[in-house]
Amino acid sequence: MPIDPKDVYRLREETGAGMMDCKRALEEAGGAFDKAREVIKKKGLEKADMIAQKGGDVKEGRIGAYIHSTGKVAAMVELTCQTDFVAKGDDFQELLKEFAVAVAAFSPLVVSKDQLDPKLVEEEKAKYANDVKGKPPEIAAKILEGKMEKNLYSQKCLLSMPYPKEDKFKGTYGDYLKSKVGNIKENIILRRFVRMELGK
Amino acid sequence: MPIDPKDVYRLREETGAGMMDCKRALEEAGGAFDKAREVIKKKGLEKADMIAQKGGDVKEGRIGAYIHSTGKVAAMVELTCQTDFVAKGDDFQELLKEFAVAVAAFSPLVVSKDQLDPKLVEEEKAKYANDVKGKPPEIAAKILEGKMEKNLYSQKCLLSMPYPKEDKFKGTYGDYLKSKVGNIKENIILRRFVRMELGK
Repeated sequence: MPIDPKDVYRLREETGAGMMDCKRALEEAGGAFDKAREVIKKKGLEKADMIAQKGGDVKEGRIGAYIHSTGKVAAMVELTCQTDFVAKGDDFQELLKEFAVAVAAFSPLVVSKDQLDPKLVEEEKAKYANDVKGKPPEIAAKILEGKMEKNLYSQKCLLSMPYPKEDKFKGTYGDYLKSKVGNIKENIILRRFVRMELGK
Repeated sequence: MPIDPKDVYRLREETGAGMMDCKRALEEAGGAFDKAREVIKKKGLEKADMIAQKGGDVKEGRIGAYIHSTGKVAAMVELTCQTDFVAKGDDFQELLKEFAVAVAAFSPLVVSKDQLDPKLVEEEKAKYANDVKGKPPEIAAKILEGKMEKNLYSQKCLLSMPYPKEDKFKGTYGDYLKSKVGNIKENIILRRFVRMELGK
């Protein structure tokens, strides 16, 4: 069912969550406003965007590392936050570990899709030229975005990858991070990662 | 005192250690052949070069990682050997750990000096042009090598850095690795490393 843009704005206004998060929450709630607000709250997305946009240095943090039990794959990540107090907290430490494990397990290429090589993005887009040919621009854009999300972003960009423990959280790693920002009430940025595999 | 090249050859013949190792052992022993042979043996350099030169795949191994107790510096290394049997052994695992710690602690730029950017090497060499001016070529080369070793190689190349636990082993990390090759009787190669520091 179509979502009323006014509801999206109002939900954003009331919760401080991101525009896309509000839209998705409304979709999940079948358009029911109060239910959507519950979704936002449950996912910890309240204020997450406001916190992220407020600015302020995000220079504290930790380096995390994970070695797979075979000893043949390992990963390191840099996760930053705003205070050392948060950095040494359990929530942050767990997040750090989860990202290091994700890098080792899923071999992402980059942290977020804006870091992808533009050439790679163009090559992928070209594959769907036929799928969108003759479609109205708005629909074409939507189809394309869907294809890109499914075949490139969710495969190669860590924050676009699905968070695998569905019973704990449903959404991408990016959504998961955002929910942590909402819970911890401090901006958290995944800066970079390195993955190493024996012989590769 | 000058070392008789014949002794160097003979020592190499008898122990299988590298030419430079034999020369250094003779120097350390003040030229006494039997004492030099003991030095080679003690350092585990016997057969180390022969093993390294024998060839054969060096594709097994492990990835090691180390996080400094602050959580703000970490390192990963890839260390390879010839059999999985050796890779899971205590000696190899200890070596792996020691290299990861060394990378975190000493921030090397490269594994070995042949991997240095040639431009950097040339720039460093240029600094000593005055020190060698007018000197006979052989002496000039020796002076230059000494300066390079001291001011560049031992500062930036992991295998040229001094192994810090002197009571355990005297020499560079490269010598230390070689002594392990001699002990374990299998070629071991430090392939690469990555170091990560918060905010750098």
